[in-house]
Amino acid sequence: MAASNLYAIIAGVGGGTGRSLALKFSAAYPTVFLLARSSESYDAIVKEIKASGRNAVGISTDVSSASSVSSALKVIAAETANKNLAAAVYNVGGKFVRKPFLELTEEEYSAGFEASGRGFFNFAHGILPLLLETAALSQAIPNPPSLLVTGATASLKGSAQCASFASGKFALRATTQSLAREFGPKGVHVAHAIIDGAIDTPKLKESGWKVNGGEEDGAIAPDAIADAYYWLHTQPRSAWSQEIDIRPFIEKW
Amino acid sequence: MAASNLYAIIAGVGGGTGRSLALKFSAAYPTVFLLARSSESYDAIVKEIKASGRNAVGISTDVSSASSVSSALKVIAAETANKNLAAAVYNVGGKFVRKPFLELTEEEYSAGFEASGRGFFNFAHGILPLLLETAALSQAIPNPPSLLVTGATASLKGSAQCASFASGKFALRATTQSLAREFGPKGVHVAHAIIDGAIDTPKLKESGWKVNGGEEDGAIAPDAIADAYYWLHTQPRSAWSQEIDIRPFIEKW
Amino acid sequence: MAASNLYAIIAGVGGGTGRSLALKFSAAYPTVFLLARSSESYDAIVKEIKASGRNAVGISTDVSSASSVSSALKVIAAETANKNLAAAVYNVGGKFVRKPFLELTEEEYSAGFEASGRGFFNFAHGILPLLLETAALSQAIPNPPSLLVTGATASLKGSAQCASFASGKFALRATTQSLAREFGPKGVHVAHAIIDGAIDTPKLKESGWKVNGGEEDGAIAPDAIADAYYWLHTQPRSAWSQEIDIRPFIEKW
Amino acid sequence: MAASNLYAIIAGVGGGTGRSLALKFSAAYPTVFLLARSSESYDAIVKEIKASGRNAVGISTDVSSASSVSSALKVIAAETANKNLAAAVYNVGGKFVRKPFLELTEEEYSAGFEASGRGFFNFAHGILPLLLETAALSQAIPNPPSLLVTGATASLKGSAQCASFASGKFALRATTQSLAREFGPKGVHVAHAIIDGAIDTPKLKESGWKVNGGEEDGAIAPDAIADAYYWLHTQPRSAWSQEIDIRPFIEKW
Repeated sequence: MAASNLYAIIAGVGGGTGRSLALKFSAAYPTVFLLARSSESYDAIVKEIKASGRNAVGISTDVSSASSVSSALKVIAAETANKNLAAAVYNVGGKFVRKPFLELTEEEYSAGFEASGRGFFNFAHGILPLLLETAALSQAIPNPPSLLVTGATASLKGSAQCASFASGKFALRATTQSLAREFGPKGVHVAHAIIDGAIDTPKLKESGWKVNGGEEDGAIAPDAIADAYYWLHTQPRSAWSQEIDIRPFIEKW
Repeated sequence: MAASNLYAIIAGVGGGTGRSLALKFSAAYPTVFLLARSSESYDAIVKEIKASGRNAVGISTDVSSASSVSSALKVIAAETANKNLAAAVYNVGGKFVRKPFLELTEEEYSAGFEASGRGFFNFAHGILPLLLETAALSQAIPNPPSLLVTGATASLKGSAQCASFASGKFALRATTQSLAREFGPKGVHVAHAIIDGAIDTPKLKESGWKVNGGEEDGAIAPDAIADAYYWLHTQPRSAWSQEIDIRPFIEKW
Repeated sequence: MAASNLYAIIAGVGGGTGRSLALKFSAAYPTVFLLARSSESYDAIVKEIKASGRNAVGISTDVSSASSVSSALKVIAAETANKNLAAAVYNVGGKFVRKPFLELTEEEYSAGFEASGRGFFNFAHGILPLLLETAALSQAIPNPPSLLVTGATASLKGSAQCASFASGKFALRATTQSLAREFGPKGVHVAHAIIDGAIDTPKLKESGWKVNGGEEDGAIAPDAIADAYYWLHTQPRSAWSQEIDIRPFIEKW
Repeated sequence: MAASNLYAIIAGVGGGTGRSLALKFSAAYPTVFLLARSSESYDAIVKEIKASGRNAVGISTDVSSASSVSSALKVIAAETANKNLAAAVYNVGGKFVRKPFLELTEEEYSAGFEASGRGFFNFAHGILPLLLETAALSQAIPNPPSLLVTGATASLKGSAQCASFASGKFALRATTQSLAREFGPKGVHVAHAIIDGAIDTPKLKESGWKVNGGEEDGAIAPDAIADAYYWLHTQPRSAWSQEIDIRPFIEKW
């Protein structure tokens, strides 16, 4: 199947990594679907991609709601008859909360799981049948169908006062591993990237925070993350990476 | 403070590890509170402990409900004026579900987090203030106040078709680490035990499952787990273990 | 077999953990053999144990030399006819070298492996047949025969400028895991303790270094480490720990 | 600096991964130096590269000998005046020995460290000054200078009867981490790849071993490993991976 009949889905877009992912995958596949809670998060990116002559469709979606994800998938289905899903990225970050455990409400604690656990369940549940269809195609496709997932430093370490974010990211890693082991042998490449550092987003710039002492390249370029995800997508099935880390050259780890 | 004015709480009791924990800690402290969803899970243990001349109080509690945990803590408070919490154990297992991911409902997936994430949050949120009070006592106590948590093989590995259980156990480990780092320096010993093997419970015996080929000691003795938790509880604060594994001599790992 | 016919061997004794281990195991078994490069490291401990009415034998041994270990084992064999080895501890630390990699000589780099790799090989090679004999005894013994090994923070993390020490400690952990998997099913308990913090030795006191800001119990009490090893030794074979961590309540990790 | 003035070094070449690495890096840089114990391992590859119009130089080297490495570096220096080292790969495998621990000789045990510990020390010690020179160039170069290292399943797990190989690979990972932390902030990208599966080499084919049941793509394509290493080499310094895993889609892990 030619790349022209393939499309990609990016869940969790905004000013940083999501935008870079959208641009990167839209360069490979003519249509990308961009999911975010609010249209403000994707409107500019959709415009940018269309201006470059490719197609992008933004869909307001709350991934922690099964029905919202289901609605998004209906929109996608309606626009992709005879097309196949090449790659899906789960880049939903969730809100980072750092506060003393005893000041955390149950809702704040569970927010980590809502974004990284339940949200990923809903997303993966909806898109894995599409990725399996792609894997079962009789025609050759350029790359194995992929489900790529964004982790963080907190995927491996539960720091003090970070129980919400870390429990969500640990749960996300567990689920990703489980899917990699179940769907890998069926031809779907499931991979997890541990982003271990601050990302050089517009928001970071506005905040004035001098990451790693303000050193050049001390924060991660979002385009470089997108390049890494796209590279994972292109790995042949005899040599898949299931987990990679990504950090600035100067990061302490 | 003499051990006679201290008490322990075990959440998650039944025929196996929970019973052994209850017996072990009741031998050290005159009163233990036993939390389980249903009184059937603790009635016999309460009886057994009382028959030995110690005190045990069973409280029907659904740890995944904040109000249920809150009610349980009121019962405990009413019975422990002028007493202090020496040790609390979170031994809630949750239901183990193994099924293809695409057959898993959202509710089944989230059940892992409900038991091991939200349930532990509610429990820890309620008992940490009590453990901090114990840590702040001006009188010497026999052992640092402890919060001990039961993990599993799935705390470190997300196996195929085990996304629910693994995501819960990963989240539990994340939260436990976060609490260990926040409350350790305040004098509360938070530790996590990875139980890597089948436990030799009455249920296991009934099931007829020959663990590790039926080899003697091929399943973990619940009393040995309880001994390990109690040993963790007795560690002096200059030398705390935060994570230990426990498995039969013949287990593959 | 009564404890009176059992003995223990501690490799790597000096003023800190090794002395505590020697005292702890000599309280359980009437004879302990203490191995150290120089007699200065064990003379006082031997005296102390003998003064308490137990027996201790110091043997000057360079564990990185196969023939030196072999000589030590001959001394032990000569003194233990009809006796069995209950527990052996490998507590050899090696020299900690921290320096820029390009200033490190090949010999300095390899010193980590000499102490923690080759040294442990020689020791384990010599004592495992003795531990297997104990495991095969027809009479009951109080505890499964044990081989207990001292790791460090550097067993899990290769820090900058610590390539020598870390490569040795990583190699030691690899070998210990391999032995645990080979000899565990044969009844020998092999376990690894990650000592993650400064140990409160006489040397540390002399150095004047204020560990963890000089906070009380901010350095690990050697006796507490010995207690942990002895506890590992007493675990029944249905519930062995293969790896535990040990750190002060206030340590950053 | 143009790519035409850059060169690469591959240590550990033969019929599989090393050949693929040599071809891949020679496509990017006009000259590659290939190190192997015996010229039989590189003669055909040198020929193949030269036939394609690029330059390759084979140097018989025993990396576990400092003087042998030193001689190799003199040959390289003589051929690279005014040129800079772009990338160095340490792909020395060492002999895989699987046998009962008590049948292992000291020499067999240490062979793992000789190849993966001492050998890597000698290689890294010799080439890091060259990589630092490249990092300090005032002219732009296409990619950050890189030191890329081949790990294995045994880098993370010490299996029964594999103490030699695992202790070497653990030591290699420790040293690589230490170098990544010391030299990363100086601009040298040090990365470690865990090759978790059988590699589809000519030797494997000859052996007749049906990896993963003989499933197509069940063994790792060496070219895919080389692609991964080259991709690591091209990562910008704001987004370096320090560790990736690589395995066939159907591998159990």
